[in-house]
Amino acid sequence: MSGFITEDFLLESNHAKRLYHDYVKDLPIIDYHNHLPPDQMAQNKQFENISQLWLADDHYKWRAMRTLGVDEKYITGNASDNHKFKEYAACLPYLIRNPLYHWSHLELLRYFGFNDLVNKENADQVYDLTQEFLRKPEYSAIGLLSQMKVEYLCTTESPLDDLKHHMTLKNSNQVIQMDTAFRPDLFLLISHPNYLDSIKKLEEIGPFEIKTLQNLKDSLLDRMNYFHQNGCRLCDHGLEAIPFERVSEKLVEEIFKKRLKGMQLTRLEVRQFQSHLLLFLSQHYHRLGWIQQFHIGAYRNANTKMFRQLGPDTGWDSIGSFINIRSLMSFMDQLDQQNSLTKTIIYNLNPSDNAMIASIIGNFNHSSMRGKVQWGASWWYLDQIDGITQHFNTLSNIGVISTFIGMLTDSRSFLSFPRHEYFRRIICNAFGEDISKGRLPKDYQWIGKIAADISYYNAKHYFDIQ
Amino acid sequence: MSGFITEDFLLESNHAKRLYHDYVKDLPIIDYHNHLPPDQMAQNKQFENISQLWLADDHYKWRAMRTLGVDEKYITGNASDNHKFKEYAACLPYLIRNPLYHWSHLELLRYFGFNDLVNKENADQVYDLTQEFLRKPEYSAIGLLSQMKVEYLCTTESPLDDLKHHMTLKNSNQVIQMDTAFRPDLFLLISHPNYLDSIKKLEEIGPFEIKTLQNLKDSLLDRMNYFHQNGCRLCDHGLEAIPFERVSEKLVEEIFKKRLKGMQLTRLEVRQFQSHLLLFLSQHYHRLGWIQQFHIGAYRNANTKMFRQLGPDTGWDSIGSFINIRSLMSFMDQLDQQNSLTKTIIYNLNPSDNAMIASIIGNFNHSSMRGKVQWGASWWYLDQIDGITQHFNTLSNIGVISTFIGMLTDSRSFLSFPRHEYFRRIICNAFGEDISKGRLPKDYQWIGKIAADISYYNAKHYFDIQ
Amino acid sequence: MSGFITEDFLLESNHAKRLYHDYVKDLPIIDYHNHLPPDQMAQNKQFENISQLWLADDHYKWRAMRTLGVDEKYITGNASDNHKFKEYAACLPYLIRNPLYHWSHLELLRYFGFNDLVNKENADQVYDLTQEFLRKPEYSAIGLLSQMKVEYLCTTESPLDDLKHHMTLKNSNQVIQMDTAFRPDLFLLISHPNYLDSIKKLEEIGPFEIKTLQNLKDSLLDRMNYFHQNGCRLCDHGLEAIPFERVSEKLVEEIFKKRLKGMQLTRLEVRQFQSHLLLFLSQHYHRLGWIQQFHIGAYRNANTKMFRQLGPDTGWDSIGSFINIRSLMSFMDQLDQQNSLTKTIIYNLNPSDNAMIASIIGNFNHSSMRGKVQWGASWWYLDQIDGITQHFNTLSNIGVISTFIGMLTDSRSFLSFPRHEYFRRIICNAFGEDISKGRLPKDYQWIGKIAADISYYNAKHYFDIQ
Repeated sequence: MSGFITEDFLLESNHAKRLYHDYVKDLPIIDYHNHLPPDQMAQNKQFENISQLWLADDHYKWRAMRTLGVDEKYITGNASDNHKFKEYAACLPYLIRNPLYHWSHLELLRYFGFNDLVNKENADQVYDLTQEFLRKPEYSAIGLLSQMKVEYLCTTESPLDDLKHHMTLKNSNQVIQMDTAFRPDLFLLISHPNYLDSIKKLEEIGPFEIKTLQNLKDSLLDRMNYFHQNGCRLCDHGLEAIPFERVSEKLVEEIFKKRLKGMQLTRLEVRQFQSHLLLFLSQHYHRLGWIQQFHIGAYRNANTKMFRQLGPDTGWDSIGSFINIRSLMSFMDQLDQQNSLTKTIIYNLNPSDNAMIASIIGNFNHSSMRGKVQWGASWWYLDQIDGITQHFNTLSNIGVISTFIGMLTDSRSFLSFPRHEYFRRIICNAFGEDISKGRLPKDYQWIGKIAADISYYNAKHYFDIQ
Repeated sequence: MSGFITEDFLLESNHAKRLYHDYVKDLPIIDYHNHLPPDQMAQNKQFENISQLWLADDHYKWRAMRTLGVDEKYITGNASDNHKFKEYAACLPYLIRNPLYHWSHLELLRYFGFNDLVNKENADQVYDLTQEFLRKPEYSAIGLLSQMKVEYLCTTESPLDDLKHHMTLKNSNQVIQMDTAFRPDLFLLISHPNYLDSIKKLEEIGPFEIKTLQNLKDSLLDRMNYFHQNGCRLCDHGLEAIPFERVSEKLVEEIFKKRLKGMQLTRLEVRQFQSHLLLFLSQHYHRLGWIQQFHIGAYRNANTKMFRQLGPDTGWDSIGSFINIRSLMSFMDQLDQQNSLTKTIIYNLNPSDNAMIASIIGNFNHSSMRGKVQWGASWWYLDQIDGITQHFNTLSNIGVISTFIGMLTDSRSFLSFPRHEYFRRIICNAFGEDISKGRLPKDYQWIGKIAADISYYNAKHYFDIQ
Repeated sequence: MSGFITEDFLLESNHAKRLYHDYVKDLPIIDYHNHLPPDQMAQNKQFENISQLWLADDHYKWRAMRTLGVDEKYITGNASDNHKFKEYAACLPYLIRNPLYHWSHLELLRYFGFNDLVNKENADQVYDLTQEFLRKPEYSAIGLLSQMKVEYLCTTESPLDDLKHHMTLKNSNQVIQMDTAFRPDLFLLISHPNYLDSIKKLEEIGPFEIKTLQNLKDSLLDRMNYFHQNGCRLCDHGLEAIPFERVSEKLVEEIFKKRLKGMQLTRLEVRQFQSHLLLFLSQHYHRLGWIQQFHIGAYRNANTKMFRQLGPDTGWDSIGSFINIRSLMSFMDQLDQQNSLTKTIIYNLNPSDNAMIASIIGNFNHSSMRGKVQWGASWWYLDQIDGITQHFNTLSNIGVISTFIGMLTDSRSFLSFPRHEYFRRIICNAFGEDISKGRLPKDYQWIGKIAADISYYNAKHYFDIQ
């Protein structure tokens, strides 16, 4: 055993070690945004093998393998699970300095007690080791979460999804609470080739025909009510940027009808439609007391050939440069003027927007509550030591770090929860470094309390988790 | 006493300590850009309490308090000064890692000898302590500056302001020199709702009716002459971006007249007007031998509701993303081609523009003088350890750090001058780290000289302060 | 001797020292992009003095001297070489923290064994010392390269250049291989004032009259064939941004003919033309098996007055902010859909685009090969410790660092090759720091191998150098 990951992994000072071990390490996990499959939760799935858990949906790993020249057969193709695992294992030594290197080893250690370095040579041994564990009941979907002390998680569903799996879980006597976040991107991305299909599906599951903008709104409200009745209190939007155009309802009606007839829209029309519908939705999020999340700045499906072959979310997305700060501010200001700006979390993907986002969240905080508008945690490409550290430092410098609601996995895998540990170690290390350098007083109790707030209590309070 | 801030605060190596203590610490302060109230200087005001000095105008603190959920009553409302102080004191422990945490403690130490950590519990004690000091004559406006060895300061005034307070001070026998910087934003922001009011006020204090563009120019020139006669040698502009449009005087005349009639202008017209007027002003700055400053990149008054309630500069501004590099370069090039580019300082607010700004300042340096075009010090949201360090490193890497004219407070408070100490410690620490790492030779005398130049002598020379 | 640059320069840990000295230090150099003059290589030039080698073409040094107020006479004027050297030597102490300070001292040490600090006082002594060396045969053009173990270098030539010097060198029995990269910027920058001259020159050296777009394409293909026959396998483009416009060949034909008639083009027409021609060229690069390089983001010739006096590449360029990510991605996607995206290296000049570029290179990697699309090394203003480190970290975090093809000089000087040493020390130091911090296992052999791959072997493989 190489013991690469020690108990003090990423903790570079004694201060950091004290903070992490005494104040943070044992806290439960609130994972308020992820993409776990609710059906697997509801049925408390037992997994066939580690490839199913680790490689089946992880486009981060896929991209890395492609960059290393691995044949697509071993990535998304029809090679055996065992073979796919071996190919990934063979890649791992070449992934040094990438978060996958840390995450992969941390996950093997935490779930399977394996603390050597994985490579081509020991791939079989590791695979066999994990097979033994995966047969055990405590390695079921819920078991894996319980091992990591997950207390709460929130998946994301489209208006077209039903919530039966969430209900099943709520009605069982499991201790883990699973909620959903309403994600109506399908109905905002009006120029998407499949838009009319989505409309049709919405008609099918809802009470209304959709011939007018009002029909669409009513249909979405109907789904929001359904989500609300089933405990939903969050929503999420994945957009290149927040649009804002001053536009009449009448014009938006025309744009929508043009689209229903299958006509092409201009970029301006798309923004006008999105601006109008997003404002409408946000007003209702506020009315319902929901929290809204905006994930902005991804450039998706850059590779047409592979998109046609594999569909979305298969590793062909990257960081864009789209934010229009006037639009984003005007959008929030409009809602605020109407007293309908609800609690909001903004996640940016391009770190060159960090300082700007850290600053704008302060523009709409009122006396009413602590940290109403949040700059969401480092996300996707930024979910690594430097990204998390820069987010933490920039938010500290420009905002008020003690109000930060902290980490989430954003993951599709049941094995990703050590990312919370990763985050917690990084922030404790940052606090510890400050103490070492005399930038913070050596007051473990106070700083430990703040670290614990960021790791757990702030989110618990913000999302009102009982 | 916790002794949180020690004599070697922020100095992490012996090299840094030597540089700071031997070469920099005792230098006087030149504060060439701030927003101090000249009347308080002229009357050498004695302050009622620390809230007046610390909280009355400090929208940095206000924003932080709002983010922590403090009621507006204790921020800008009618709560007592004592109560407001207590609320801010209660916030301070939650502001760890924000520059306010360091600044606040540093200011309490330097002016009042208080070196414990402030919090809700000891707020009364601190308030009482400061009250004792504030009664003393050396805690008057000028006294506070003298304690910090302030030798020179430069406030900013609009063309509508008179300079009687500056004159009063100049005619007194005070050792502190106070100049002004001419800031005609009011007359460039042509689409501002109050523009016509500003024009009217300018008519009232000036010799001309303003019916034409030429009238406006003449009126501004008249004010520039007045400022010049009263010792003004700087100007300042706060703009989202430097505009540049090729446009005829005739068209600008039409735009101006449209506005005088109360008509709406397009965005292009606004830029055309601003470009024309700014070039005109810059030519005259050059003629007069003034130094021009551009503060670009702020997104101001994002929150309409609060703007209506509290007005500008009350904590609802943030970092924007506006710089058009072609415009900025064309503007400077145009002046340079006419041999009328005067000494220029460019301050950016979005740090993602750092490298670009660090590089463009080199495009117009001529043999004529050292460091003619300057990248202004880290400003507003960037005035913190990371921001200052990044500015210092980027300017070092891309420009010539030894020519840098260094720090200013940009503050509205007489207690902000330890920010110069903060800056000086940070740059000495950076130099010291370089020596520790073998990136710079261990030549204290030379590096100490450069550190002193950046802290004091370069500014003294650049602004020609006697 | 001050011994400022020690054998462990920039290596801050024992891990870093082991990695550098045991695995990287002695590797040969592949310099796959520079601007060395091929004629000097072919004639194996012996240099008159260090000013010729160091100052004659180095606009980095020129800019620094101008910022320090040196008279243009000593920069590009008619002062003697000796005097110019003295002026630069006098500047050097003021260039601390700029890469020129390190490079200059490192070059004097490596080539001339001088390890003291240069200044005004010892300038004559240094000049005389270098004169002694420069007479020796091992200080010829090829000798200087051989001293640094340069194995391969690739210059850049325009379609108008001939390759006779490359041929001369290839036909000699020199061990250094010199290839060229085809750089047709002249024919893409259609709105450049000298465009018609360039067309005329192309007509003169080629077989075709150029009256149509097809003529231009045929002429360029003819030059590409000539380059290909003479061993060229790379190309390079210096553009503000990669353009992409959907446009018919017919319209582009009209645009080209407008330009031939001397008419002005709109910005859109320029982009349409460039988009069309660049796609055409890229298809042929793919057909020929070439590697394409894009250097994007420079704002060139910002100072009209000095451009008129000195021409391009004389120190009046800076970092721009131009990248349109949609265009860049659409351009690559279009080629990829046609199965004609060749190996591609993208170099950005604005570091605020770092994360975006690091992410987009993963969008077109296929199973076919390792690291097909590369994020080029830190370039120009970014070629310094922080720039290299940030590139290295961002590529590590977002991409796969083990596939990185590493450093190049991009230089016009035969003395610039210690920049490879600089780069290698920096990356070994980064790896060493990771080991020190427990972020990487203490596996010198593996990490040393990866460091060696990045320093040498990856480039050797990527460029297929025998």
